[in-house]
Amino acid sequence: MNEKRTKFLLDESEMPTKWYNILADLPEPLPPPLHPGTGKPLGPQDLAPLFPMELIKQEMSTERYIEIPEEVQDIYKMWRPTILHRAYRLEKALDTPARIFYKYEGTSPPGSHKPNTAVAQAYYNKKEGIKRITTETGAGQWGSALAFAGACFGVEIKVYMVRISYDQKPYRRVMMETWGAKCVPSPSEETKAGRDMLAKDPECPGSLGLAISEAVEEAVSRDDTHYALGSVLNHVLLHQTINGLETKKVMEKIDAYPDIIVGCIGGGSNFAGLFLPFVKDKIDGTKPDLRVINVEPASCPTITKGPYAYDFGDEAGMTPLLKMYTLGHGFIPPPVHAGGLRYHGMAPIICHLYKLGLVEARAEHQLATFKAGVTFARTEGIISAPEPNHAIKVVIDEALKCKESGESKTILLAHSGHGFVDMAAYDAYLSGKLKDYEYPKKKIDEALSQLPKVPA
Amino acid sequence: MNEKRTKFLLDESEMPTKWYNILADLPEPLPPPLHPGTGKPLGPQDLAPLFPMELIKQEMSTERYIEIPEEVQDIYKMWRPTILHRAYRLEKALDTPARIFYKYEGTSPPGSHKPNTAVAQAYYNKKEGIKRITTETGAGQWGSALAFAGACFGVEIKVYMVRISYDQKPYRRVMMETWGAKCVPSPSEETKAGRDMLAKDPECPGSLGLAISEAVEEAVSRDDTHYALGSVLNHVLLHQTINGLETKKVMEKIDAYPDIIVGCIGGGSNFAGLFLPFVKDKIDGTKPDLRVINVEPASCPTITKGPYAYDFGDEAGMTPLLKMYTLGHGFIPPPVHAGGLRYHGMAPIICHLYKLGLVEARAEHQLATFKAGVTFARTEGIISAPEPNHAIKVVIDEALKCKESGESKTILLAHSGHGFVDMAAYDAYLSGKLKDYEYPKKKIDEALSQLPKVPA
Repeated sequence: MNEKRTKFLLDESEMPTKWYNILADLPEPLPPPLHPGTGKPLGPQDLAPLFPMELIKQEMSTERYIEIPEEVQDIYKMWRPTILHRAYRLEKALDTPARIFYKYEGTSPPGSHKPNTAVAQAYYNKKEGIKRITTETGAGQWGSALAFAGACFGVEIKVYMVRISYDQKPYRRVMMETWGAKCVPSPSEETKAGRDMLAKDPECPGSLGLAISEAVEEAVSRDDTHYALGSVLNHVLLHQTINGLETKKVMEKIDAYPDIIVGCIGGGSNFAGLFLPFVKDKIDGTKPDLRVINVEPASCPTITKGPYAYDFGDEAGMTPLLKMYTLGHGFIPPPVHAGGLRYHGMAPIICHLYKLGLVEARAEHQLATFKAGVTFARTEGIISAPEPNHAIKVVIDEALKCKESGESKTILLAHSGHGFVDMAAYDAYLSGKLKDYEYPKKKIDEALSQLPKVPA
Repeated sequence: MNEKRTKFLLDESEMPTKWYNILADLPEPLPPPLHPGTGKPLGPQDLAPLFPMELIKQEMSTERYIEIPEEVQDIYKMWRPTILHRAYRLEKALDTPARIFYKYEGTSPPGSHKPNTAVAQAYYNKKEGIKRITTETGAGQWGSALAFAGACFGVEIKVYMVRISYDQKPYRRVMMETWGAKCVPSPSEETKAGRDMLAKDPECPGSLGLAISEAVEEAVSRDDTHYALGSVLNHVLLHQTINGLETKKVMEKIDAYPDIIVGCIGGGSNFAGLFLPFVKDKIDGTKPDLRVINVEPASCPTITKGPYAYDFGDEAGMTPLLKMYTLGHGFIPPPVHAGGLRYHGMAPIICHLYKLGLVEARAEHQLATFKAGVTFARTEGIISAPEPNHAIKVVIDEALKCKESGESKTILLAHSGHGFVDMAAYDAYLSGKLKDYEYPKKKIDEALSQLPKVPA
């Protein structure tokens, strides 16, 4: 048994030095984002008040590979390359002939994949002379990653955190403060959007959409301040491909290639970061049988139930219009513990690939995902965040199918991070208090009736 | 800057396959543990109701190297070898010519060094046919490590957790339960010791000493059950040397050797695990100038203020007598956040080395250690547990001395784990609510007056 290797790792010197841009290889071009006022495709200048020009260029670029700045590589090397694990103990527990691998992003300082883009975004902002970045955060994964990135480059970070999470989940807030960021509950008194809401409802628990509105309002009102988004957009997915490129390279070294790749999707950046460099091989015909399974919550079934339509990225309707599967920008998903998967829309790149039949999607209820997460913890040791538990559920299903068929498929799991700050969710599950939410059809129908009109 | 390496790591195939036993190399033999009734040195059979014979042999062995069973190596490889980091960003922030390295144990499933021994202990118990292991835990680091180890080998784990922590810090309890362990608050109704205490004081918040009494009582009362201790004893330190052996090997590969090694000590197993393989070189004269600095809390200054005397390992006085620096087994340390450092005694091996002048000790107040921890987080990214913050404080002091003297010393830090479940402590520090505790001289004098009488 000691000959079996458990962990596979690139040397620091082998870490990819370029990100992979799928826009160079799409069989059909991505539908462009539209200006909400004119309905016309967005130009770079439309985004300039929010983002540095380098990121805007990346958002629209069709160059296949984009150089990772040395300063960003240096920070990545604090925890990257990350380890590819072979899940021997899970395989044994399932008695499956499948070979299960997982690429684990939980060893980054904030404990997830998020800093892969946070560090890059902080860097480009700093380079453009920006002194402050605002952002929103729900449960706090993204806010804490940007706080860490701000500390790396000496950029001030201001995070609007949805008030109910700010009050109920203080640990992520304290992490942000430890890295030197300022975190305020949203709605706040610091913006017009916040004040208006507090005047209407002083007890307002907040929402991600409102927090975006506050962060954007502050960013556009100050010359020294930009805004940052943690998922959905092309440049965010681009930065996350460092993970997929590492995985592909290390799997090549051990002469392995996945038959099935599985990951969870909220905005989509974690999973796309892993699978995009592999999907390239499906597009060019090298690996026609590769299967890519996107897993979303059954109570927020964006791809599996939503229409493919232009919609706003935020609840308040301030962002450009993105062509995506959507449940309607006004839809507020049920309070499942996988906070990172509670989003009405989805990265346009993933939606496009799904539309083209290049990737699949599946929706899972949270009870089943926690059951899978406990199995994973008791075999592989790692206590996972509620988000990757969704993917683990599907990995186990696929491995059990292999047991039935006798096939020794290679399954690759995108493991986005640990669950050390999510133990309250495990407590609810283990004590029988966790429940599933029914598909909220009425609320979704209502939200979908509010989709913005777009000129044909 | 990209030529600089940030992380140094052994290959899985290079992981040490033996633990190092310092008892083979001590210039004078360790004073033996004594039977509390007879005052005579303890025999193996005295420990048989609590521990498997393999561990009892290791406790008393003077063999220099002890084989790590393959089954234990296989589990170690889930996260070991761990990374040796070069702290470039901390060095730069301090503007010091010192080279700072840290060996980081926070990537183990429970997030600390504790599973290095928990896995070995669970294995030897399983091999001897033991079905259940009881233990105590304070804040929960040790309990969660043993819970993880129990899951690895299918051994049932029962943890008596000090009630005040059980109520106030539920996250570690939930981790134990996620790995399948049973965790009960102590005092409990399940043992005579617990029931007696509850009869006297139904609101009793519990103590580590009482939790040990409960765990030991249950272990001796059942044939299928043993007891496990997470620090202090020789075999625990032995298992932790995997970390020091890895560090020595990987430093050899980069042609580095520490001038100063720094670590925090509660029971002592984390730091001893790192420094024992290096102290060997000081004993045999190869590295006469090596400095080893043990850091303890100023409010629980065992080595720096306590006498070197025989005392009980637990508060209730049920264990054998150990020769150690002690503040008295009845001493209850102030509630500093570094729960793992709140212990009245110290590993006999460390005490012996200190007595022989082979290692140094220093005591630090908690405010200064959190300040150091925040500096570390904002430079090296990692949010550390309150315990290693004590060592980080001293590393920074030593690096600043190098700045003054212009010396480029090599400083090695034993970093025992992350602080993701200790964010409440950071919150208290950042909001100005954290305070230092004065040296509790009166309570210590009182406890020291109760030291057991030992025949000369």
